[in-house]
Amino acid sequence: MGTRLGALVERFGGQLVGDANLEVNGIAPLAAAGAGDISFLSNSKMRAQAAACGAAAMIVAPADDAAVAAGFTGARIVTPNPYVYFARAAQYFESLTAHVPAPGIHPSAVVAADAVIDPSAHIGPHVTVEEGAVVHAGAVIDAGCFIGRGAVIGEGTHLFANVTFHARCQIGKRGILHSGAVIGSDGFGFANEGGVYIKIPQTGRVMIGDDVDIGANTSIDRGALADTVIEDGVKLDNQIQIGHNCRIGAHTAMAGCVGVAGSAIIGKYCTFGGAAMVLGHLTIADRVHISSGSMVSRSILEPGQYTGFYPLAKNADWEKTAAIVRNLDTMRDKIRALEKTIKTLTKP
Amino acid sequence: MGTRLGALVERFGGQLVGDANLEVNGIAPLAAAGAGDISFLSNSKMRAQAAACGAAAMIVAPADDAAVAAGFTGARIVTPNPYVYFARAAQYFESLTAHVPAPGIHPSAVVAADAVIDPSAHIGPHVTVEEGAVVHAGAVIDAGCFIGRGAVIGEGTHLFANVTFHARCQIGKRGILHSGAVIGSDGFGFANEGGVYIKIPQTGRVMIGDDVDIGANTSIDRGALADTVIEDGVKLDNQIQIGHNCRIGAHTAMAGCVGVAGSAIIGKYCTFGGAAMVLGHLTIADRVHISSGSMVSRSILEPGQYTGFYPLAKNADWEKTAAIVRNLDTMRDKIRALEKTIKTLTKP
Amino acid sequence: MGTRLGALVERFGGQLVGDANLEVNGIAPLAAAGAGDISFLSNSKMRAQAAACGAAAMIVAPADDAAVAAGFTGARIVTPNPYVYFARAAQYFESLTAHVPAPGIHPSAVVAADAVIDPSAHIGPHVTVEEGAVVHAGAVIDAGCFIGRGAVIGEGTHLFANVTFHARCQIGKRGILHSGAVIGSDGFGFANEGGVYIKIPQTGRVMIGDDVDIGANTSIDRGALADTVIEDGVKLDNQIQIGHNCRIGAHTAMAGCVGVAGSAIIGKYCTFGGAAMVLGHLTIADRVHISSGSMVSRSILEPGQYTGFYPLAKNADWEKTAAIVRNLDTMRDKIRALEKTIKTLTKP
Repeated sequence: MGTRLGALVERFGGQLVGDANLEVNGIAPLAAAGAGDISFLSNSKMRAQAAACGAAAMIVAPADDAAVAAGFTGARIVTPNPYVYFARAAQYFESLTAHVPAPGIHPSAVVAADAVIDPSAHIGPHVTVEEGAVVHAGAVIDAGCFIGRGAVIGEGTHLFANVTFHARCQIGKRGILHSGAVIGSDGFGFANEGGVYIKIPQTGRVMIGDDVDIGANTSIDRGALADTVIEDGVKLDNQIQIGHNCRIGAHTAMAGCVGVAGSAIIGKYCTFGGAAMVLGHLTIADRVHISSGSMVSRSILEPGQYTGFYPLAKNADWEKTAAIVRNLDTMRDKIRALEKTIKTLTKP
Repeated sequence: MGTRLGALVERFGGQLVGDANLEVNGIAPLAAAGAGDISFLSNSKMRAQAAACGAAAMIVAPADDAAVAAGFTGARIVTPNPYVYFARAAQYFESLTAHVPAPGIHPSAVVAADAVIDPSAHIGPHVTVEEGAVVHAGAVIDAGCFIGRGAVIGEGTHLFANVTFHARCQIGKRGILHSGAVIGSDGFGFANEGGVYIKIPQTGRVMIGDDVDIGANTSIDRGALADTVIEDGVKLDNQIQIGHNCRIGAHTAMAGCVGVAGSAIIGKYCTFGGAAMVLGHLTIADRVHISSGSMVSRSILEPGQYTGFYPLAKNADWEKTAAIVRNLDTMRDKIRALEKTIKTLTKP
Repeated sequence: MGTRLGALVERFGGQLVGDANLEVNGIAPLAAAGAGDISFLSNSKMRAQAAACGAAAMIVAPADDAAVAAGFTGARIVTPNPYVYFARAAQYFESLTAHVPAPGIHPSAVVAADAVIDPSAHIGPHVTVEEGAVVHAGAVIDAGCFIGRGAVIGEGTHLFANVTFHARCQIGKRGILHSGAVIGSDGFGFANEGGVYIKIPQTGRVMIGDDVDIGANTSIDRGALADTVIEDGVKLDNQIQIGHNCRIGAHTAMAGCVGVAGSAIIGKYCTFGGAAMVLGHLTIADRVHISSGSMVSRSILEPGQYTGFYPLAKNADWEKTAAIVRNLDTMRDKIRALEKTIKTLTKP
């Protein structure tokens, strides 16, 4: 099932150089694209490969167009951001063949009488929807999901199989929650009485904006009193932990295994590499980028890239340097002693 | 739904200064407390804020009472540990409005004929309880949970939706298991034959004490032959991994993303910051505190605070220092050479 | 329920010294083995303990046999790798008493009409199997599992309760997937348009070989266009994250909490300690061993052991050394200055 180039340009814009009636069957990267495909050049270094590509059509940026056109014999769609165009076109090709879940509630699902399920929503097998929950139009709730009392699932949001979405939490439109995600578990809050922990009830919610993706087995705790907030467009990968009362700013992205301790306030347009960790009660400004494996132990008030992980080495070399790291103060003292001695020597 | 101050003091003690019949509707921190609330002062630095707070009543420590009383016009409950008092009072306020799951077994649950379910326990939709499992009085097993053959769930213990509790494992009273937790998965044990791994059956159990909380998506492996043991009062946050044959001492708390490798023996009253890691077969004494992001690679026999993570820096600065770290032995050699030269220079 | 020594030797080889008709009831380590058990000596340092052990029989390597025989009065099975023999014998003992799930589909399971379930497979309560999925002979699908459209579960593979196995993914024979594992979640792929992320459809699969174990709450993302591949004999522990388009070479093992970013290509016979992290698009050679807590930020082309974590210290000591690490370039400059001064001093 393919599409006409003209149909792509009508949907996604771009300047078509070539036959609008040409049919393409799919989208593929330069190395894999065949005669029926449309491909894309998102990196100017690959111009030569694009020029030699056997695809039927090419998505290309204005700056690369002349160089590609010199060799490439297919049609071209010229657009400022070919990678974004690729993403949109790929979504479109996928939609042509994707399985569309049927609206309605599977007979094995257990849905409270006063839950409000839009007739266009899909509720899969073995789902539980508790009292007062609301599932909006076009939402897809796959098998085994749990939606707690009073929770709200926004329009077109998709819960993959075995997602747990707890009471009173909310997610906006077009969200995607991957399997094993847990939204609204209790935050980790205790008072300590002579060594014994007394639980502090966690009565806040998790409030999630529009266009938010949450990865497999990621967990987001509800707030203690106030809410945990995930703003619009946030993208969280798998195995992430977000503590209670955090706020993650709009369009921030976190790679797998990131951990954010409670009450951290993170800005917009930030990125966190895999397994980065953020301590609690910190503030991170907008447009801060944290490298993988780095521990953020102080607030960051200036945008920029920050890093903090021990460099990898052959084990024997690491043992040598680690021993020195453990005794760096000795080394510092030796240098100070040397400086002092030399001062004496060089004194007139 | 509120409560009389007198009722709070009858339940939780403290010395009431004010009208025992005054009704309060909820508990809130200093900054948020309104005219119908009771608030609390748990940090002496906030005395001025407490004195000016508009709450109906204030929980306050003896040492702060005079300073607060000078300005605060509401009632006061004087008690040695206001934060603990807050936790207990908050639990009480929550209990007044909390949803109480009805006793009984949901018709969609699949419960083995010889499983023993106390009539006061709640078994939710789509739950599976296998042969010989025991669920004690007042336990709450939410939707989608799995309880394996011969497992035992103690009195008043709460399994949130989609918890997996495997065969023969046990948990005591008043426990809380959050969604996605897996108790009793096989430990990671293999014999290696010419590069190929041969599985060693994991036939031990996970034995969990009373008052234990286990976070969302946390996993605890069963022992290989002996048991994995989690003692009373342990609090585990989300995304934690506990390997086979570990023992976690009573009232130890671990923040999110901590990992403990197999056969580690951890003392009582310890704390582990987020993403701390403990290697296998280590022993950690009582009252050891491990900072976030720190790797424990040797046994720790003395109480205290231990840390080991690379400090965060601007990426360019990190690149500079990381390159030096990789070559610290060169630096050490240079210092030795300098010392030698200077020794020669300063020799008579 | 026990077995004759002769039966063990017929199954697993080894040279029996003693009575083939002697019955043993179980297998236990040296310290725990009683009169009805068979034990094993896998570490020559424990020879004396083996010689004094009260077990009915002992599995022993040729090099240790004489020393053990000098004291040990029971029967002996002499074999080159007693630990592997132990693993196999333990599997056998376990099989004698293990619960064998009955073939067939539980009435509460929801299985698509065109799914192909081998009559010898077990489909537990509340399982969902979607259209076109295939479950081969002897597979065991425990309660609450989800198997997506067109997925394939190989012969004898066991999905513990609450595993999510997404559409079109495949696993081979004798695999074990522990509870909470998620196979085939979407990879983390986006194009960025002015700060806003546009999702790139993830249309590849996860293709898993034979004899692969996958731990509790571990997630493996499907490929973006091509597949994510897990080769034969790979063993993944709990809480692991494998990004899209990775390839994990045969017989590689990863301990808990490891993270592998997208498109990393990892060799065969590698090991990864707990919480090790691998950045995306790297290549790791065969027989590379990464220590726990280490961040792999560059490709590794030579076999060997590699390490990179900050050594743990008492917190006060760490604070001292961490401050120096942050300013290592200052220290380097001081050394250079000293070298220069000394050069001047020592010049004739």
